[in-house]
Amino acid sequence: MPPLPDELDALLREPHPAVIATLKPDGAPLSVATWYLWEDERVLVNMDDSRARLDHLRKDPRVSLTVLDSNWYRHVSLQGRVVAIEPDAELKDIDRISQHYRGEPYRTRDRGRTSAWIQIENWHAWGV
Amino acid sequence: MPPLPDELDALLREPHPAVIATLKPDGAPLSVATWYLWEDERVLVNMDDSRARLDHLRKDPRVSLTVLDSNWYRHVSLQGRVVAIEPDAELKDIDRISQHYRGEPYRTRDRGRTSAWIQIENWHAWGV
Repeated sequence: MPPLPDELDALLREPHPAVIATLKPDGAPLSVATWYLWEDERVLVNMDDSRARLDHLRKDPRVSLTVLDSNWYRHVSLQGRVVAIEPDAELKDIDRISQHYRGEPYRTRDRGRTSAWIQIENWHAWGV
Repeated sequence: MPPLPDELDALLREPHPAVIATLKPDGAPLSVATWYLWEDERVLVNMDDSRARLDHLRKDPRVSLTVLDSNWYRHVSLQGRVVAIEPDAELKDIDRISQHYRGEPYRTRDRGRTSAWIQIENWHAWGV
């Protein structure tokens, strides 16, 4: 992977809108808006346990994430794969993500959540 | 395809940030921010002729497009496939798209462009 410039690392640390693309069982792409956290050069995403996306990721871990700056002509796309899928038993991950985006713990407390860690293998940036 | 509510149709007609996911030759998803136009219940996207994405679409026409409202917790994802790829010989399509997003014709006039029309097969919306 080409090294990530400091400017991009800084952008990824901010709470920006993002869209993740995963693969459906038939290999078709599926995109959806998502919260994410950029930690230790990996991407953390977190899903309700009922999401079909979780099954997709278990079947094929390849993903692409596009992060839009507030001026969205500045954007970065990360390609990689999910290297760990873990139950977010005490909602620690989703709380950390919710704090990042909304400044408060996650509101829904009665549903199971699962975390997925994405290892980046390539990236492209525009306007950076 | 489930019918698209008027509210979603209206959202799609506005110039919102969007991310398109295509498939690389190895089947991995690739996401990137894009301009789009919602016309006649199809999605028009337009690329510089040099984009690898064009080759990807010719090889596998399946795509997913996520459109973010200005409050991006409101978003819609469209899944479908490219049904036509056409040279944008006189830059009419990219000019129409640029007018929509920026209120002016497209600035770069000396590079070839190609249009792709996407037929929608399914959609999901959040916050709408």
